[in-house]
Amino acid sequence: MAAANGGGEADHLAGERATAQFDVDGMKVAWAGSRHALEVADRMACLVASDPVFRKDTRTMLSRKELFKDTLKKAAHAWKRTVELHLTEEEANLLRLYIDQPGYVDLHWVMFVPSIKGQGTEEQQKKWLTMAYKFQIIGTYAQTELGHGSNVQGLETTATFDPSTDEFIMHSPTLTSSKWWPGGLGKTSTHAVVYARLITEGKDYGIHGFIMQLRSLDDHSPLLGITIGDIGGKFGSGAYNSMDNGVMRLDHVRIPRDQMLMRLSQVTREGKYVHSDVPKQLLYGTMVYVRQTIVADSARASSRAVCIAVRYSAIRKQFGSKAGGPEIQVLNYKTQQSRLFPLLASAYAFRFVGQWLKWLYTDVTQKLEAKDFSTLPEAHACTAGLKSVTTSATADAIEECQKLCGGHGYLNSSGLPELFAVNLPACTYEGDNVVLLLQVARFLMKTISQVASGKQPVGTTAYMGNIQHLMQCKSVVKTVEDWLSPAAIKEVFEARALRMAVNCAQNISKAPSQEEGFSELSPDLLEAAVAHVQLIIVTKFIEKLQEDIPGHGVKEQLQKLCGIYALHLIHKHLGDFLSTGCVTARQGALANEQLGKLYAQVRPNVVALVDAFDYTDHYLGSALGRYDGDVYSALYKEAWKDPLNETVVPDGYQEHLRPLLKQQLKLSRL
Amino acid sequence: MAAANGGGEADHLAGERATAQFDVDGMKVAWAGSRHALEVADRMACLVASDPVFRKDTRTMLSRKELFKDTLKKAAHAWKRTVELHLTEEEANLLRLYIDQPGYVDLHWVMFVPSIKGQGTEEQQKKWLTMAYKFQIIGTYAQTELGHGSNVQGLETTATFDPSTDEFIMHSPTLTSSKWWPGGLGKTSTHAVVYARLITEGKDYGIHGFIMQLRSLDDHSPLLGITIGDIGGKFGSGAYNSMDNGVMRLDHVRIPRDQMLMRLSQVTREGKYVHSDVPKQLLYGTMVYVRQTIVADSARASSRAVCIAVRYSAIRKQFGSKAGGPEIQVLNYKTQQSRLFPLLASAYAFRFVGQWLKWLYTDVTQKLEAKDFSTLPEAHACTAGLKSVTTSATADAIEECQKLCGGHGYLNSSGLPELFAVNLPACTYEGDNVVLLLQVARFLMKTISQVASGKQPVGTTAYMGNIQHLMQCKSVVKTVEDWLSPAAIKEVFEARALRMAVNCAQNISKAPSQEEGFSELSPDLLEAAVAHVQLIIVTKFIEKLQEDIPGHGVKEQLQKLCGIYALHLIHKHLGDFLSTGCVTARQGALANEQLGKLYAQVRPNVVALVDAFDYTDHYLGSALGRYDGDVYSALYKEAWKDPLNETVVPDGYQEHLRPLLKQQLKLSRL
Repeated sequence: MAAANGGGEADHLAGERATAQFDVDGMKVAWAGSRHALEVADRMACLVASDPVFRKDTRTMLSRKELFKDTLKKAAHAWKRTVELHLTEEEANLLRLYIDQPGYVDLHWVMFVPSIKGQGTEEQQKKWLTMAYKFQIIGTYAQTELGHGSNVQGLETTATFDPSTDEFIMHSPTLTSSKWWPGGLGKTSTHAVVYARLITEGKDYGIHGFIMQLRSLDDHSPLLGITIGDIGGKFGSGAYNSMDNGVMRLDHVRIPRDQMLMRLSQVTREGKYVHSDVPKQLLYGTMVYVRQTIVADSARASSRAVCIAVRYSAIRKQFGSKAGGPEIQVLNYKTQQSRLFPLLASAYAFRFVGQWLKWLYTDVTQKLEAKDFSTLPEAHACTAGLKSVTTSATADAIEECQKLCGGHGYLNSSGLPELFAVNLPACTYEGDNVVLLLQVARFLMKTISQVASGKQPVGTTAYMGNIQHLMQCKSVVKTVEDWLSPAAIKEVFEARALRMAVNCAQNISKAPSQEEGFSELSPDLLEAAVAHVQLIIVTKFIEKLQEDIPGHGVKEQLQKLCGIYALHLIHKHLGDFLSTGCVTARQGALANEQLGKLYAQVRPNVVALVDAFDYTDHYLGSALGRYDGDVYSALYKEAWKDPLNETVVPDGYQEHLRPLLKQQLKLSRL
Repeated sequence: MAAANGGGEADHLAGERATAQFDVDGMKVAWAGSRHALEVADRMACLVASDPVFRKDTRTMLSRKELFKDTLKKAAHAWKRTVELHLTEEEANLLRLYIDQPGYVDLHWVMFVPSIKGQGTEEQQKKWLTMAYKFQIIGTYAQTELGHGSNVQGLETTATFDPSTDEFIMHSPTLTSSKWWPGGLGKTSTHAVVYARLITEGKDYGIHGFIMQLRSLDDHSPLLGITIGDIGGKFGSGAYNSMDNGVMRLDHVRIPRDQMLMRLSQVTREGKYVHSDVPKQLLYGTMVYVRQTIVADSARASSRAVCIAVRYSAIRKQFGSKAGGPEIQVLNYKTQQSRLFPLLASAYAFRFVGQWLKWLYTDVTQKLEAKDFSTLPEAHACTAGLKSVTTSATADAIEECQKLCGGHGYLNSSGLPELFAVNLPACTYEGDNVVLLLQVARFLMKTISQVASGKQPVGTTAYMGNIQHLMQCKSVVKTVEDWLSPAAIKEVFEARALRMAVNCAQNISKAPSQEEGFSELSPDLLEAAVAHVQLIIVTKFIEKLQEDIPGHGVKEQLQKLCGIYALHLIHKHLGDFLSTGCVTARQGALANEQLGKLYAQVRPNVVALVDAFDYTDHYLGSALGRYDGDVYSALYKEAWKDPLNETVVPDGYQEHLRPLLKQQLKLSRL
């Protein structure tokens, strides 16, 4: 498999691997989702790891321009390999993923192509996608502006129809209307789907998408009236600096009328704005799709961080036992376990809820095709909430893993700084996490009012139908062991989520208006939304465990991880559980005690549990997370690659150090 | 003052400043600590801001080597200015602070010089400090090793006395004994205090400090037997990459016997190890000093982040009011307030506890000089705890501010990525925060057992003497207004902290041994330690408000911030307060309600409250945090400085983009 590095080198983690109480290969299949998924992922990961063009060990040492050029090179090489090897779409996506360097191709495939698929007419799709699929054009998605992010309706760019020439005039009327952030816009894309206010016959019809060519296909220079550039450096040494996020100003740029994306509405030759009979809801499918991929990314990112931290914690020793004996593995400290093991459990929890979301997306797609929009609001709220909770938790998890690795976690060679800088922005892009949680909260408030009027809630809100019981139930937990019952856990999470939501609804109803109440209560609503989403994650983990999971001991380990995930949330949010009366202080203490027992039980398995992610050393990109645990030699070796080490005496010594040391700084008399 | 930028430009935040209900100048004095402190800080900040050598707007765009050279240049220039202007020590320190670029001088002044002062004999001090004060030598502090961080006793480097030549032989016996991390070691320092196991007459006497010359004072080349280099890139674009954190291996390097730091113990000419009569406790003074400066740094870093986020949130608008009117200032959203205002309050809380720590340090110093060591353990626990809690909270605060600024927070031009990357490591250096909190917990356990045997606890643990009352009291809060009472707040914080500690103590006593119990309970002990430290911060804020604080409305605003700080902690840690029975669910809800009222009350003052930090635009280094609020022009202008924008068509187009677009990638036949 991918992770094993051939060559018969010493395995410093062999002792840890020997204590595993389950079939690691079976766990790999469970993590991957299927034997097939594991096989394809493994093959693509090895393909990337073995190709020198995809090396990334010096990425953080490159200047911005070098890094950007390296990204162009990798993208071209990846496409070359994709064509040469006749890779399937699944394989090509995995290839991109394991290359692990953000670039224009992400926007092309994940935003540009799907936008045209979703909003273009059949004719438009035929014309543009044919070119896009062959990379004859490179596209991006230009929505956000310098002064406008989450609120799409606030965009200022205009697309004014000129019937005299049958064209739209695309224009940036203000500085704040400059397009800002689109990946690939700055230096690479030849085309973009540009969002602008459609104005025709003197009337503003709001935001619509338009296909624009941005650059010459001959020499790549921006077309007339288009000012375009990169928005500058971003968080991290390498990270998203490989991406040319761009700024663009439009000065009365004309495009043909048929480059408006016309699947949902059109402007006629005469300038009339007309709606088609295609239902608007179809667009929501794309949103569910994109957010589902972000949840999958979160599981991957948090599992990478946890893999690094677990392996290094098994190697690293610190402080002796009482009697001055040898130092103790950091992984054996209870404080390390209580911080790290919940993150391990979360990675598994996010992975499984991500697998379920993939199913949800196909379910939604089928229903949309049958014009059944009934479950769409619930599916939308659920994916928005999961995107929010998993990305926030992942950013926190990576930062915590960095701290759990001590000082070395701050070195680029640990891989953690890059991982953090690449994943933190997911809290903001594709829907700011707080804005999304408020959407979830709004949906919850609506659901409660519907429950009150007798309507049965669906999907992940079905539990709210059980309001009579959940509003008054008390947990039956009496012993530490009782907390191992999935039913006991599910009940308290359901009761907590529902009671928090109902509290909010009651307080909103006391306000002068619904809107004022919602605004006033919004901090509480955020917490209620989080409680609801955590319930979804816990529930999907429990449901996963009701499936048949092959492999010796695999299900047993997952049961323990599920327990850790749920019980650590009870401990962390104890205030919620106590103040809503679902749990007593005594029961909270028992939950905490059970948590400690579960930590001890998974301890011998944790290295094998991160091996099951099946990550190559290339993909991890971490001296601390190496499969063979040969951490210190790797750190030492990496250090010498730094450009500062090219000379023994540093550049600047003659000008700035020697005069100081020799007391020869030229002083001015004042 | 510093913050006001002359020139009569439009002030986009003038409206916000006009609503302030207090005397901003008075608040500046309160923040600075005194009129004198404000004046000096302001003068030094302006000196730095007006000097072109200290520009830092392109810092994140430099390569590692360019950035390092820039640091050398700034350090030399700072020293030149210090000498030219005859700056006092206070002024010189502030100059360095406002230059805001980590470099070798930090280690020289904060670690090398104090180590020799603390551990050197008078003769040694005279010899080495004379040179150090003039920068004839540059020193660093070489303690940590590749395989050894927190546990100083685990260091492997050896210093073996050779009586035949009257020398110590300094040696790195293993790879893991390589010195690793010391700032300034990699490329700059000519000397270091090196920690090593002292071996004489065949016996290992444990870790001692030695002064070593590392590099030639003629040509800066490393001395014979010394292999030395930089440990490689670190978190962030610029951040700590300006510092040459180093690796060093020693191959039987000989130094004269008199370079052992001999204030506390000596090796005689014959090789006898002897203790002096200087008490070991004197060394603790340095530790208290260094950690006190870190708490001050935390207050500065979190206030910088908050200043940026508050100003930008006042400028940024998002979403309309219900009727489709103009967009609303982000600062008016309750969710923004509930995330941002507690960080504003925390910055003030950390600042005031930092001022108190400064007093504590002088108090400790006086007592040490009088050989009174009675309050040392308490002072040590208190500073260790405050270092831990404030640095962790500060890292979180900066990250939260980044998120609160939406997408733009991830741009280097926002200043936030750099601020985060520079401050996150404070959670680990100078004592890992978890290790420090466990030291606090150990002290708390000891204090409880002493209280049980009738000994009166001192200083910040004095409240533990009130155990009878605090173990059974119930908060008397009945109304929202009752939570404005400092006494009511103090009581619940005291009761929570004490009860958590006592719970731990009781559970430890049930374990087979004290050590096993402490280890088993360590996750709970961490939480008890945090509760104790938060009590200290709340208490010192309340005590500050009992002083005379001049300026119209200044004290009133600080009272509100104090309330926000305390009540947001009650909300955040509600599980603690409820499970220990200090507070009922109903009282918790009232606290939350009062919190919302305080947010509304400080809202008109928040821009003025961050103005009171008196930061120059240079020091903030943020397009989003500009004093004049002209955010979007600044972001736009900064973007074009990026090296990627030097050409319209990017480097790499001919090799990697054009062949792709033109379908001319050279494919291999497989």
